[in-house]
Amino acid sequence: MSEHGTSVVGVGEFGLIDRVTARLSYGSTVLLGPGDDAAVVAASDARVVASTDVLVEGRHFRRDWSGARDIGHRAAAANLADVAAMGARPTALLVALCMPADLAIAWAEELADGLAAEAATVGASVVGGDMSSSPTLTIAVTALGDLGGRAPVTRAGARPGDVVALAGRTGYAAAGLTVLSRGFRTPRLLVEAYRRPEVPYAAGPQAADAGATAMIDVSDGLLADLGHVARASGVAMDVRRDAFEVPRQMRDAAQALGVDPYTWLLAGGEDHALAATFPPAVPLPEGWRPVGEVTPGSGVTVDGRPWEGAAGWDHFR
Amino acid sequence: MSEHGTSVVGVGEFGLIDRVTARLSYGSTVLLGPGDDAAVVAASDARVVASTDVLVEGRHFRRDWSGARDIGHRAAAANLADVAAMGARPTALLVALCMPADLAIAWAEELADGLAAEAATVGASVVGGDMSSSPTLTIAVTALGDLGGRAPVTRAGARPGDVVALAGRTGYAAAGLTVLSRGFRTPRLLVEAYRRPEVPYAAGPQAADAGATAMIDVSDGLLADLGHVARASGVAMDVRRDAFEVPRQMRDAAQALGVDPYTWLLAGGEDHALAATFPPAVPLPEGWRPVGEVTPGSGVTVDGRPWEGAAGWDHFR
Repeated sequence: MSEHGTSVVGVGEFGLIDRVTARLSYGSTVLLGPGDDAAVVAASDARVVASTDVLVEGRHFRRDWSGARDIGHRAAAANLADVAAMGARPTALLVALCMPADLAIAWAEELADGLAAEAATVGASVVGGDMSSSPTLTIAVTALGDLGGRAPVTRAGARPGDVVALAGRTGYAAAGLTVLSRGFRTPRLLVEAYRRPEVPYAAGPQAADAGATAMIDVSDGLLADLGHVARASGVAMDVRRDAFEVPRQMRDAAQALGVDPYTWLLAGGEDHALAATFPPAVPLPEGWRPVGEVTPGSGVTVDGRPWEGAAGWDHFR
Repeated sequence: MSEHGTSVVGVGEFGLIDRVTARLSYGSTVLLGPGDDAAVVAASDARVVASTDVLVEGRHFRRDWSGARDIGHRAAAANLADVAAMGARPTALLVALCMPADLAIAWAEELADGLAAEAATVGASVVGGDMSSSPTLTIAVTALGDLGGRAPVTRAGARPGDVVALAGRTGYAAAGLTVLSRGFRTPRLLVEAYRRPEVPYAAGPQAADAGATAMIDVSDGLLADLGHVARASGVAMDVRRDAFEVPRQMRDAAQALGVDPYTWLLAGGEDHALAATFPPAVPLPEGWRPVGEVTPGSGVTVDGRPWEGAAGWDHFR
């Protein structure tokens, strides 16, 4: 049997763990890496930020739409962005991988490569995990992070008069997903944005340092996620459509597919942009741009009116 | 529709998260609990211990063999024991729950109750998580812990002449699982041991304080797990059969089912006992009993001979 054709059942759980961990490397925050009952990770200010996200095949990814490495990047990004959205720097990932027994080893190895490569972009490492066979390919990732003495930026601190600002892109990944779901493979810009989100990780701690009053990772769609912040903060928000540029490829795809591109920009998740609120007197840090404002009341409006387009994502609906 | 009959799809992802988190409470190590992008947990000595274990329906549990609350206890125990086996005290759990959309809300709530109750026995809290629908009911848990200034006790420090010691029970859960798999519901002692392992969490930090040279959570079976320690430490180990008492209920069940009870005691996992090695001059801490010794060489023997019985657990075989 060819090496590429060897399935995970062929090498067994411990064999696969050995093969995957042999591909990993560890940053300076890793005090004890994989191979023991647990890992030990530095937490410089005596606090650790922790978040878990799970990806289920058919629901969060499809193997015919994304390669294993892409899926690793995406699974890591979803979790690392949550840590950044608290104002922290990610330090470590732990990964629980449930796989059909006939999955090729190479697939699991490439997934690990993608997870590790995405983590490495922020100096974080894959420090542990677990593997099991399962009828449903499932990737549960936990990210740890270090606030470095900063106060965590929660969803609850936005105040009327604050500026609503965005770091990173929205709508690209949603557009790419729509393109793939209609059976196309281009525009490449959009499809690649879906496969490997470009997350502005550093913008999280920078926003915290600049005095952001609230922050969130945009994973359910901008309006839905701003809705979480508005609810937690007891405020309303208004977003300006003209703060969003529709890139040419997105406009073309929208026209070809009969979609309003603002549905992607305002309600599409999975780019893992960061949204935050800043006091009006604060100069926005590099990479952040204003997209709206915080007002008294409740709910999120677009140009002063309720949004009539598609809402955000609910993983049970 | 009755409340008990409401399925998770009926309340949606956010509704279910709200309902589950409303049932939780938080210990003093929780600086920020669920409801934001990430939790913040105290890490008193600027290090955090972290471990992930995943349970898949049909592979690690069956809903007709265990209630939701039992499965929560078991899922938490598997992870908390890993933290204890490093010599740390568990502080927090994060839980990724993948559920069929027709699962009753009450089931998910009771699972959360079991997870939280098991965590509470060691002062730890459920601080975060994620939920998704999935065809396969899957529970991925990450446990965090605090070494409190101790050096982590790894698998790699056992030395020839050390005493091999055990805290907690072995074989009870494996016997209970065999009983259930043959269609019986008694003896209750064994079935309950399978449903809710009694883990000697405090014995982990106590062993570290006493100078244990290596430690492991017994989840693959004692001989298999001692094999992991022997391999990591570059030593051999011999276990004495007469160190293990066969309780009456186990003896009766073994006879009725035609099983060698030592297969349960020596090769059955899932009780989450702790096994450790101690220098010979060290008085064993309370709750630890000697079961063998470390010798030069490699491999694990029973009364000086290779074990001919069933081996440990591999989640792909």
